[in-house]
Amino acid sequence: MWKNSVFTSMAGIDYPIVQAGMAGGVTTPELVAAVSSAGGLGTLGAGYMNAESMEKSIQKIKSLTSATFGVNLFIPEYPEIDQEELQKASKKLNSYREELGIERSELPSNTTSSFKSQLELVLKYRVPVCSFTFGVPDKEVVQELKREDILVIGTATTVQEAVVNEENGVDVIVAQGSEAGGHRGSFLSAFDKAMIGTISLVPQVVDEVNVPVIAAGGIMDGRGLLAACALGAQGVQMGTAFVTSLESGAKEPHKQAILHTTEEKTVITSAFSGKPARGIENQFIRNMKSYEGDLPAYPLQNSLTKDIRKEAANQNKPEYMSLWSGQSPRLSQQLSASAIVEKAVAEAEQLMKRLS
Amino acid sequence: MWKNSVFTSMAGIDYPIVQAGMAGGVTTPELVAAVSSAGGLGTLGAGYMNAESMEKSIQKIKSLTSATFGVNLFIPEYPEIDQEELQKASKKLNSYREELGIERSELPSNTTSSFKSQLELVLKYRVPVCSFTFGVPDKEVVQELKREDILVIGTATTVQEAVVNEENGVDVIVAQGSEAGGHRGSFLSAFDKAMIGTISLVPQVVDEVNVPVIAAGGIMDGRGLLAACALGAQGVQMGTAFVTSLESGAKEPHKQAILHTTEEKTVITSAFSGKPARGIENQFIRNMKSYEGDLPAYPLQNSLTKDIRKEAANQNKPEYMSLWSGQSPRLSQQLSASAIVEKAVAEAEQLMKRLS
Repeated sequence: MWKNSVFTSMAGIDYPIVQAGMAGGVTTPELVAAVSSAGGLGTLGAGYMNAESMEKSIQKIKSLTSATFGVNLFIPEYPEIDQEELQKASKKLNSYREELGIERSELPSNTTSSFKSQLELVLKYRVPVCSFTFGVPDKEVVQELKREDILVIGTATTVQEAVVNEENGVDVIVAQGSEAGGHRGSFLSAFDKAMIGTISLVPQVVDEVNVPVIAAGGIMDGRGLLAACALGAQGVQMGTAFVTSLESGAKEPHKQAILHTTEEKTVITSAFSGKPARGIENQFIRNMKSYEGDLPAYPLQNSLTKDIRKEAANQNKPEYMSLWSGQSPRLSQQLSASAIVEKAVAEAEQLMKRLS
Repeated sequence: MWKNSVFTSMAGIDYPIVQAGMAGGVTTPELVAAVSSAGGLGTLGAGYMNAESMEKSIQKIKSLTSATFGVNLFIPEYPEIDQEELQKASKKLNSYREELGIERSELPSNTTSSFKSQLELVLKYRVPVCSFTFGVPDKEVVQELKREDILVIGTATTVQEAVVNEENGVDVIVAQGSEAGGHRGSFLSAFDKAMIGTISLVPQVVDEVNVPVIAAGGIMDGRGLLAACALGAQGVQMGTAFVTSLESGAKEPHKQAILHTTEEKTVITSAFSGKPARGIENQFIRNMKSYEGDLPAYPLQNSLTKDIRKEAANQNKPEYMSLWSGQSPRLSQQLSASAIVEKAVAEAEQLMKRLS
């Protein structure tokens, strides 16, 4: 049944399962390679990486697999820096730093982005697939990548965002439903207008664009895979399902939190990064809730909370970590990434037989 | 493929498509009969009906079709009445009344419910299916219905609510995802904790209960039908899809609003009834937003706004009407109810062939 997918032939993969390019250390080269070797599309979440670590990761992935893989990049944002605002925002975090024994923290002094050098690496290594989040790459960037036979994937959370992606020339669009864990990809609409459930978003996007659509948000297994295909998607992107995989670089408290929570426990918060994201509610989110409207913009707030998130993970304190998760945590499993891919494919195939 | 559905044989229908029991005049006997005659399950939304009009409607449905149909009832709520609070809340509505030329409005003096007489009618006419929203019927009620061979359907918006439905003995559970239009069925969780997308909710519910599950929320066509079956549901409940049908009793401005809006335009509001519900954002919702935390409980606020909603519909002023809609309005069509059922079934069957 997978041969009918336009997306699998475009991407040169066996099964239309994309491992989401989650940033922040989750997507180890081992995870990316395992997904790709199993016939899916592993994706390095390079959004927060500097050129050096991104290059090392690409080299490592290439040493581990000869299969197609991808890199995910963040369209950069450059909010104005107001030192006074940053100082005020940083003060709100000092009680956490004290509790964690963090002695000294630095304010971000500029909003640099590695985007340009990241793109150069994608071109240099001719990474087979390059996906983007938080916006649409310029037409020139898209064309440059396509000239090198690099498949370009955009992200949309509304029909309008999908249309703009198509206008800018992307090959494939990930439609991210409201169930998705981690950061919302919204870039045209206010995030709260763009919380459309996957089962609503996918067919409405499919009807309006001519490029293949990949469904994301709440999909964890073969049931979600077949459902996405029924909705008109050419495949799925799964994030949370791979966070708890054996090869994932997610911290152990993060994995355990997903494995033991329920569908009612995730919330949308901007407290960690200044940008709305779905994660398991904890003390930090609850405490910061009253400041939500008043935080520095992404990526400034992300820089401010970095020391806290890191040290909390070191000290096994999930209450101060960003525990990104989608709305289907009850379906999470501790398996190898290849087993997750293979089980999903086998389950979808069995389901097809049972239904027909 | 529909013969595999446990639900269709339990309900005695050909296709696992339930027309949601939307209250407020949408579910005319003609609509209910048309859906049932086409092989689906038409449902009279009797939640707000008094015994007399409910009985008339049941008689009319029976005169129009010999097929299986259902009735939907609301589990009653009896909030305390505080005349001062009601007067204050009613004042907030006076500017709308003035604009609409409504001269005199009465405050609700008690919170009666027709629930008991509604149940008696279901038993008297042995309505084949009885579904419930806003809570779970007592075990005794469930048993009484089952003794008369009436199929009992409950509504859940979380796994926990589904488990409680099963414990109370219901035969089938509708899992209502966050995409759904109209009132949220949540009764255990705060509504904002229970906004789980259909693609997440359905498989997580299916894994935890042993009774058949029907998927609701965002489903409008054969793609949604097949997707729901893939997720482990035994069928779908569609509401918005039938609001715009030819037999629907929805006011014309309501139908037109759905037909011409987009997925970004619906919001959750308590302004019309005191209970969270999804509808197309309009002036009334925007104006009332700041009072949301401070409104009389359902069904008191519903009584207070009744004159406004009614008169606004008469005057073709959609800005003051409750324009309930799910998150897939782009998929709405002006067709007969039977065409909606038949198209969905045919599309799902074609999709199955194409995917396999």
